[in-house]
Amino acid sequence: MIEDQPSPSPYQTREELRELVRSQLQALLERENFEGAKALLVPVQPVDIAAVIAELPIQMQAIAFRLLSKDEAIEVYEYLDSSVQQELIKEFKHQDVLDIVDKMSPDDRARLFDELPAKVVRRLLNQLSPTEREATTLLLGYQPSTAGRIMTTEYIALKESSTVAQALERVRSLANVKETIYYLYIIDASRHLTGVLTLRGLLTADSEQIVSAIAKREVIFVHTNTDQEEVARIVRDYDFGAVPVVDSEQRLVGIITIDDVLDVIEQETTEDIYTLGGVQSGGDKYFQTNNLFQIARKRVVWLFVLLIANTATSAVIAGQEEIIEQVVALAAFIPLLIDTGGNVGAQSSTVVIRGLNLKEVHLKRALATISRETIVGILLGAMLGLVVILWAYFLEGSWGVSLVVGISLLAISFLAAVAGTALPFLFSKLGLDPALMSAPFITSVVDVLGVLIYLWLARLILQL
Amino acid sequence: MIEDQPSPSPYQTREELRELVRSQLQALLERENFEGAKALLVPVQPVDIAAVIAELPIQMQAIAFRLLSKDEAIEVYEYLDSSVQQELIKEFKHQDVLDIVDKMSPDDRARLFDELPAKVVRRLLNQLSPTEREATTLLLGYQPSTAGRIMTTEYIALKESSTVAQALERVRSLANVKETIYYLYIIDASRHLTGVLTLRGLLTADSEQIVSAIAKREVIFVHTNTDQEEVARIVRDYDFGAVPVVDSEQRLVGIITIDDVLDVIEQETTEDIYTLGGVQSGGDKYFQTNNLFQIARKRVVWLFVLLIANTATSAVIAGQEEIIEQVVALAAFIPLLIDTGGNVGAQSSTVVIRGLNLKEVHLKRALATISRETIVGILLGAMLGLVVILWAYFLEGSWGVSLVVGISLLAISFLAAVAGTALPFLFSKLGLDPALMSAPFITSVVDVLGVLIYLWLARLILQL
Repeated sequence: MIEDQPSPSPYQTREELRELVRSQLQALLERENFEGAKALLVPVQPVDIAAVIAELPIQMQAIAFRLLSKDEAIEVYEYLDSSVQQELIKEFKHQDVLDIVDKMSPDDRARLFDELPAKVVRRLLNQLSPTEREATTLLLGYQPSTAGRIMTTEYIALKESSTVAQALERVRSLANVKETIYYLYIIDASRHLTGVLTLRGLLTADSEQIVSAIAKREVIFVHTNTDQEEVARIVRDYDFGAVPVVDSEQRLVGIITIDDVLDVIEQETTEDIYTLGGVQSGGDKYFQTNNLFQIARKRVVWLFVLLIANTATSAVIAGQEEIIEQVVALAAFIPLLIDTGGNVGAQSSTVVIRGLNLKEVHLKRALATISRETIVGILLGAMLGLVVILWAYFLEGSWGVSLVVGISLLAISFLAAVAGTALPFLFSKLGLDPALMSAPFITSVVDVLGVLIYLWLARLILQL
Repeated sequence: MIEDQPSPSPYQTREELRELVRSQLQALLERENFEGAKALLVPVQPVDIAAVIAELPIQMQAIAFRLLSKDEAIEVYEYLDSSVQQELIKEFKHQDVLDIVDKMSPDDRARLFDELPAKVVRRLLNQLSPTEREATTLLLGYQPSTAGRIMTTEYIALKESSTVAQALERVRSLANVKETIYYLYIIDASRHLTGVLTLRGLLTADSEQIVSAIAKREVIFVHTNTDQEEVARIVRDYDFGAVPVVDSEQRLVGIITIDDVLDVIEQETTEDIYTLGGVQSGGDKYFQTNNLFQIARKRVVWLFVLLIANTATSAVIAGQEEIIEQVVALAAFIPLLIDTGGNVGAQSSTVVIRGLNLKEVHLKRALATISRETIVGILLGAMLGLVVILWAYFLEGSWGVSLVVGISLLAISFLAAVAGTALPFLFSKLGLDPALMSAPFITSVVDVLGVLIYLWLARLILQL
């Protein structure tokens, strides 16, 4: 008997829903009840089917996949993780693989081919239909993370001389094969991009009008070599559903739709967050790699760089050990000073790096921003310094030591705020990624100066 | 003479383009050449006009704004920063303000009203046209950052019994007043959401068909109280152009389009990045506030919490000062150990927090992930520890001290990796934001244990 179809409802979380479908599907497949399994999947969205299949035991994945209709199979396949896509390619008969790969949209196919072994890619490429092979070779010819690589060639282009009625007829006939029919691009005889029209505009125009009369001429476009992060910024700022891509001759070669931009943004954000945290690995593959040695090897590189920067602190203290020898109490506050300085620096660098990324803060305002942050750093250092003086006195009973600790904290907060603000600006000016100057690095730099100041103040105030 | 119109081209950066337009516009306005100024703005996108106006001297902003056509003025107004929007409201004659505010889309108007003083909002609300007042009061009635607050009421709903031809006619007539015409929602007599149809599907259907025959029944929707971050995740996962919003009775009340979701994502990402960096302020308003005392006061709260956590380290060291007294060399390596532990912890917490956020890592896999990270932490600690042993010997000439430092580093790396992984999971399980367990906090926690281990190892190995 077929179980109740789960209806997509936000009352259950989507994870619970997918888990429910997966367990039901697995049970049906184990009993070889293929009719029941097919019926189970009918109301489920392709995105969710893909997630469910990925969670099945590997030997069941191909079986589950074959339950789908041809069209649905292609959509589901496009949503699968690349590791599952590759697994299925191995499982399928050659012709089944070709059928799917040939019908995928070019950008998803290019993304899949990026992950497959070169031998498999060559074989598949040779057997694609000519138009699809051409589209794919075009995309793969562009650098990764550029507009050319992430675009799709499945757009609608209209001649200047088309009437609105002809254009609508064209839209109808192509509605099921193009990535989007909501933006229509006007091209001349040499495929140069000359205008854009929305379906909304087309529907509200007279059917006898010529499209060139109603098209918008000031088209916002990107080049094939525009960085994907810039593409994302443009789509986000202008609220476009799609943005056209032109080559160096200004010829229209593809479009990037807003849903693909969402994926780009997620990818880029993960990279930024990782860089801020001092992780230099390949972005969002972290949890899919199982080779722990490889992970450790990648992470240790940046840790080494930071370690070397940090050795300076030990050299400074070792060189002035006699101060500690005389006033051992000073050693107790080293972690507190360092951590607080690190926290202030982390705050400053976080807001500046994010501001630079969103273009809310500009290089030309660098000095103004640094001055602002410096004052904030002094205010913070003063507030924290006062509290710390009291704590230090409570712990060690010496006003001299307390004063040294308190003033050092003020100085370190000041330094940390300056460094946390100025270093990202400096890197941005040098054309480097400001996110590299994040908390881990700022802390290491500030610590050396902080320790120097601490010991110097101790010498001064405690007259050592 | 009118200068050459700058054409929107990615050859110049958009910042340079806007600066160009701004300087030209300002020059024309200073010479009171209003015709020239109008012509200058014709080919410029509303988004860019808004950015340009925001950069003009305040007294010129209203003048520039009045150059725009009615329709364009509304679009540009919706794109302005809320501070500029408020400034213009003060400048305009009352009727002009009403005209704009009445014609804005409801979600943008709600966003503006959120920022205006309550008195102004009441006055404006009273004078809106009834439908617009109703729409706005509806939105403002919902909690901030929920679907109900960010949705728009300008969608197209169809009756089950409409024919395709009737539906298309409806779409045409409403094409210029609705937020999107590409998704059409089927409702019953009581406004319950019963199906969805894309314009694509409508265009490819027979004009005599009834929409209920071609509508998709399994609709993915959200509730008015769904968190905006969850809305963004749904839109991103399912690649929708819009998602419908229903109330507790399952009645359709609004939609959220994908371009608004992009803004939500940017906002939420900024909040996440700020939280990771230990900044607890109101997200993306950081650089618009000019009250530095207010900024410092907000930032100091979390710094205080961390400071208190850190006082434990000074208490531990102060309590065992005699160890430092006997082997002063030990003090030299405290910063190095603490910073390296902090860096390892930062890496681990960064990847776990981001993974939790993207649902790439799940609570039920917590133990597996923690074990993974622990092994990586040990590997990292071993590699770094070896190097540090050599450095410590080079600096202080004592194998005993070097061994203490090296083994401590291994232990601290292990602790940092465990804490950096486990604490975010713990917070997630408790229903709190895992991003609070980021580097600054992890470091403070690990340092206390790290210092304890360091001094205990020293006592053990150096037989103190």
